[in-house]
Amino acid sequence: MSETRTEIASLGEFGLIDRLSQPFAAASPQTVKGIGDDAAVIDLENEYGLLTADLLLEGVHFDLSFFPLKHLGYKAIAVNISDIAAMNGIPGQVTVSLAVSNRFSVEAIEELYAGIAAACADFRVDLVGGDLSSSRSGLLISVSVFGKVDKGKVVYRASAQPNDLLCVTGDLGAAYLGLQILEREKQVFLANPNMQPQLDGHDYVVQRQLKPEARMDVIYELAEAGVIPTAMIDLSDGLASDLLQLSKASNVGAMVFEENLPIDEQTYLAATELNLSPVTAALNGGEDYELLFTVRQADYDKIKNNPKISVIGYVTDQPQSITLSLKSGSKVPITAQGWEQG
Amino acid sequence: MSETRTEIASLGEFGLIDRLSQPFAAASPQTVKGIGDDAAVIDLENEYGLLTADLLLEGVHFDLSFFPLKHLGYKAIAVNISDIAAMNGIPGQVTVSLAVSNRFSVEAIEELYAGIAAACADFRVDLVGGDLSSSRSGLLISVSVFGKVDKGKVVYRASAQPNDLLCVTGDLGAAYLGLQILEREKQVFLANPNMQPQLDGHDYVVQRQLKPEARMDVIYELAEAGVIPTAMIDLSDGLASDLLQLSKASNVGAMVFEENLPIDEQTYLAATELNLSPVTAALNGGEDYELLFTVRQADYDKIKNNPKISVIGYVTDQPQSITLSLKSGSKVPITAQGWEQG
Repeated sequence: MSETRTEIASLGEFGLIDRLSQPFAAASPQTVKGIGDDAAVIDLENEYGLLTADLLLEGVHFDLSFFPLKHLGYKAIAVNISDIAAMNGIPGQVTVSLAVSNRFSVEAIEELYAGIAAACADFRVDLVGGDLSSSRSGLLISVSVFGKVDKGKVVYRASAQPNDLLCVTGDLGAAYLGLQILEREKQVFLANPNMQPQLDGHDYVVQRQLKPEARMDVIYELAEAGVIPTAMIDLSDGLASDLLQLSKASNVGAMVFEENLPIDEQTYLAATELNLSPVTAALNGGEDYELLFTVRQADYDKIKNNPKISVIGYVTDQPQSITLSLKSGSKVPITAQGWEQG
Repeated sequence: MSETRTEIASLGEFGLIDRLSQPFAAASPQTVKGIGDDAAVIDLENEYGLLTADLLLEGVHFDLSFFPLKHLGYKAIAVNISDIAAMNGIPGQVTVSLAVSNRFSVEAIEELYAGIAAACADFRVDLVGGDLSSSRSGLLISVSVFGKVDKGKVVYRASAQPNDLLCVTGDLGAAYLGLQILEREKQVFLANPNMQPQLDGHDYVVQRQLKPEARMDVIYELAEAGVIPTAMIDLSDGLASDLLQLSKASNVGAMVFEENLPIDEQTYLAATELNLSPVTAALNGGEDYELLFTVRQADYDKIKNNPKISVIGYVTDQPQSITLSLKSGSKVPITAQGWEQG
């Protein structure tokens, strides 16, 4: 008997998800959208329900040597709420399932839950259930969120149109540089435990890594301004990767202007200190949990004065071709891995 | 600075959940029921939504040396559907989040998904999302399920009334004895890899362990018979523990008759072979994923001819006092740990 063994690494996460998802076409007419967007969409007669789930594993997604448990609890909720925001939805209820090794005390788990409670309060959601299990190796957090959205206001990835404006909320690249700063200080500490971490001047980038916020504030503001984005995705993997996802789903391309990328002063500072490119951090850093969305040009006046929103480019009719227009005037293609300097 | 360290083991799973849940009173008027039942209940105007989540970890909940991946995928879905059934609800959509170490090939994960797909087909639910992550140690499956129930038909744990009849579906104790048989054969194999597993005559108990079914069939039959249970819980931890949960929530007690406990012939056979008590297996084995429910005496005629339902006793007005009436005529108290032989 010959058995084929294909390594997961040879397909990658997205490749494996594509392969596994194929047999799962939705059968119920109440399943409006299954796998393939930030959240699933469920028909509830008068409105749509939204359902999303995410895992966070110690040693894969977080390092407890510099990640406070309270912040981790907050982040676990925020990153899931961000998926509901990306559907233009309002989150309502969350479940949290934990697997915990006996390395953790009850007090440590209470710290984690204090962060979960803070996020539930900030995003006005109720913790309604979950599971608690022992673990043989470290800490694992699995969160699911249920939310709702008006049927006429749900926003998918797949509906961007050529000439739409490309927008992002907040600023980009800070969370990635915050992580690099924290990793650097960890190495310094490991080499000499008497050294104190040098985080002065990096409080913003460090906070962006440790306490990301889901942009529900912008969702409410867009609703107030009467703007329904034509397409939306949250920025978890980095602008380059997430913009490619949105472009692929919508069968469009995009032109992005380097000079329009919102990058904080502290991000430039940290990038300089670490000898990294701030533009690369903005494009590929990931974990910003900002929103990337497209709007019709006719809606420009309704968003142009919102300081939380930057128009970074526009949608083109060239499928999956993403171009970065540099400050120098030259143009380079953006790939999932980043951008190729011309 | 003095820090208290309380071991999780000193509180136990239920104790820790109680302690962690206290600050999480539901804030939204749409959260009808939060933590503390088989699933959360969410107000959707014309009906209720149901949300539940569960974790399965390798080395804690399953042993891949005898648990086929396809069965594991099926079980991961079935045990979550069982929580929706226990609310008298109909499941609609599931999310599956996986963490996988590089020990697993793509083909292995496809086997797991084949089982997930089979369960989704059997229980008529759609897989609509989830997450996929690498893991440093083994396999982890986190499932959440969304379902719905008519507002007038939702069944909680907390509403059993004295003199209601106590009912269970199917039979009890087989899944536990199936696990003991599998563990025995694993030890035989480890001692001598040339030995073949001896599972003859144990196919039923082994199947009960490897491929539990959520009792959606009974939920549909109760609806057809016009019966709404007064209270319900699914049997995941064992009759003793789950009946105590239901009694505690309803502030009632129960009388259970040993002679009425539904126990399969193969369960008796396996118990004899392993020198275990079949009644202990029925009370404390766990993982049967049958339903324990109470009905008004007036509904007895509507269920008495259903071969899937056994009336095992009745509800009393003595809070949390559960008594087992033995075939010998003597009566013994049932505790979460089991029952004390008189």
